[in-house]
Amino acid sequence: MAFINENFIKIPATYLFSEIAKRVAAHREAYPEAKIIRMGIGDVSLPLPNAAVDAMIKAAEEQRNAETFRGYGPEQGYDFLRNAIVENDFRLRGIDVEADEIFVSDGAKSDTGNIGDIFGVNNRVAITDPSYPVYVDTNAMSGRAGNPNSQNVWDNLIYLPCNPENNFEPQLPEEKVDLIYLCYPNNPTGTALTKEQLAVWVDYARENRSIILFDAAYEAFITEENVPHSIYEIEGAREVAIEFRSFSKTAGFTGTRCGFTVVPKTLCGYTEKGEKIALNRLWNRRHTTKFNGTSYIVQRGAEATYTPEGKKQVQALIDFYLENARIIRQGLIQAGYEVYGGINSPYIWAKAQNGMSSWEYFDYLLKEKNIVTTPGAGFGLSGEGFVRFTAFGSRENTMEAMRRV
Amino acid sequence: MAFINENFIKIPATYLFSEIAKRVAAHREAYPEAKIIRMGIGDVSLPLPNAAVDAMIKAAEEQRNAETFRGYGPEQGYDFLRNAIVENDFRLRGIDVEADEIFVSDGAKSDTGNIGDIFGVNNRVAITDPSYPVYVDTNAMSGRAGNPNSQNVWDNLIYLPCNPENNFEPQLPEEKVDLIYLCYPNNPTGTALTKEQLAVWVDYARENRSIILFDAAYEAFITEENVPHSIYEIEGAREVAIEFRSFSKTAGFTGTRCGFTVVPKTLCGYTEKGEKIALNRLWNRRHTTKFNGTSYIVQRGAEATYTPEGKKQVQALIDFYLENARIIRQGLIQAGYEVYGGINSPYIWAKAQNGMSSWEYFDYLLKEKNIVTTPGAGFGLSGEGFVRFTAFGSRENTMEAMRRV
Repeated sequence: MAFINENFIKIPATYLFSEIAKRVAAHREAYPEAKIIRMGIGDVSLPLPNAAVDAMIKAAEEQRNAETFRGYGPEQGYDFLRNAIVENDFRLRGIDVEADEIFVSDGAKSDTGNIGDIFGVNNRVAITDPSYPVYVDTNAMSGRAGNPNSQNVWDNLIYLPCNPENNFEPQLPEEKVDLIYLCYPNNPTGTALTKEQLAVWVDYARENRSIILFDAAYEAFITEENVPHSIYEIEGAREVAIEFRSFSKTAGFTGTRCGFTVVPKTLCGYTEKGEKIALNRLWNRRHTTKFNGTSYIVQRGAEATYTPEGKKQVQALIDFYLENARIIRQGLIQAGYEVYGGINSPYIWAKAQNGMSSWEYFDYLLKEKNIVTTPGAGFGLSGEGFVRFTAFGSRENTMEAMRRV
Repeated sequence: MAFINENFIKIPATYLFSEIAKRVAAHREAYPEAKIIRMGIGDVSLPLPNAAVDAMIKAAEEQRNAETFRGYGPEQGYDFLRNAIVENDFRLRGIDVEADEIFVSDGAKSDTGNIGDIFGVNNRVAITDPSYPVYVDTNAMSGRAGNPNSQNVWDNLIYLPCNPENNFEPQLPEEKVDLIYLCYPNNPTGTALTKEQLAVWVDYARENRSIILFDAAYEAFITEENVPHSIYEIEGAREVAIEFRSFSKTAGFTGTRCGFTVVPKTLCGYTEKGEKIALNRLWNRRHTTKFNGTSYIVQRGAEATYTPEGKKQVQALIDFYLENARIIRQGLIQAGYEVYGGINSPYIWAKAQNGMSSWEYFDYLLKEKNIVTTPGAGFGLSGEGFVRFTAFGSRENTMEAMRRV
């Protein structure tokens, strides 16, 4: 008799985005004339940089001829891309990362989800609250999360609340934790940590031989000096951190699919007997056994984002979204809202007025202003009372939305 | 203290392809003039069909403009591709599969590796011997394989030997098994099962409430009437089988990356209490949580392989490799070798002469004939004494190799 992994059936169905869709559809039916502006979803609206499109077309043409055709590539990614990443994302910032520490993938969602494969089930896992739901759900699937209560709080996870009271800086847990998910600039709150604030966590991990799983998918949106683009800017992080990166939000690759994960060769986990084991070797084994490389064509597209042309075009995308973020932030502040994020991030985290819940606030914005947001409660208990605005829309819609607010 | 998944360190390092590379390099150094022909690796040599390249270029151009740009797509794949798959791979053969039973992915390696996520650790797993190493390694990683001995035989796996004595037809195990990996047409032996032979396994699975993980990556190479292209041609298979498919070997997508998995809505696994749970829902949860869809551009390329033009071009690729396979098969038979496969498959499984081991035979072919093969022992104990020839080379090299033999 084939047994299922019963952890799967503990996970509540995700109603967040289907519930949003349902409420938007009902509103549209009631008011067919309403000009609805969508500021909920984390997907980009601007097209790919020309440099990336040109490179992918060239690569596709190469695949047409036997002389230039490429079959299986290295599972870890082609050297041309790994080297471009090392040079541009790390060495230019003075960060020490080597090409064989880079694992190219089809995106950060896959990697942040799959990374759990190389860790034991008995690790104590800390997750900031609110957070990207993939961290919670994948730990639930592997059995590390324990059991959920009616509010979808899992009894084996250690939640690190991030809220206005602690200035969205997660506090060190009282209980010792082994794996720590940190995403900065943060999804969904849009807030960032300074180098000093992140160093607190690196020091904690070094003292406790914990590992930080650092999601830096939004690093390109950083505008402030003292906010680290990579956790490896912090001393000692190469001994305690894995970093996830993505081309999705920077170069508009949400539908093109490319990301990468950095696993330093100096990073170790432990056996139950206390033996140190290099994680680069373990992740390499996982990556080469359960993955067969990112599409060659897509890797050429990603490489092109590092050319002088490509860099300019990517920066233009980022600047456009950051200006949207500024407009949203300013508009909400002028309207009297309490807002966070939007300075080093495409996300603005707005507190509901008059003690409304996330969903009440969502409904108010939908019904009164024809604006779709994402209720913060969907990202965890500490998200209650907030909604997330995203800056990925068109300038026209963004400005119109702020006029309505 | 962060604990690793200790199952990873039980897995012996894979020396197969690095050992092959080492021996080839040594031979090349000793005989720099030697014209080495590579018939070892399972990668294709012919370029992509024009229809696929054209479609990918068109899709890349769409990504250049905001009006046609596509961001996040459905994780399970776009309807245009799921529908094309259903229509062409299944309905045209009279097989009942629906679009929401198709999960598009970046390839069959990922899916055959990741499928274990939805099953419990305590299932008894049967694997044909020899086999594609991913089945063994991924079960080892998740703890279902137990511990290996010095010959890399795992104590919790049930091996199903396939050899000339049983005509490469795996026999039903004496001990009850819960999960059964079958790959037909088979990698590495190149042999196939008839409908009646496969029905034995479907019946076994129905009686024992087991699940068959059916890898059909090579179905396009089938030339004989009574060999099933899909396990769903067998009555009752929709209740007991998951099927894996790939565009890699059919349309040359080894470096482009696209495949899909079929999980019928009628297929169930069980909780320990015996409750039936639909696996389509579980795999959907896994696929949408740990994967973010296959590249839009690549999905358009895959879709194009189902157009009238695309089908003709794919068939031309298959015919070319099948003719290579015929030449290799005939050449080896004429040279007095005992050979299997190569009729419904691009793989030819050749028995070493004079009682040589796989590696001895490999060395003989390399040193005396300048031909690189893959030692059968690398695929499991029952592969000892064989080598695998692949038909993916050029016509010229294939004919030259057979002249040398």
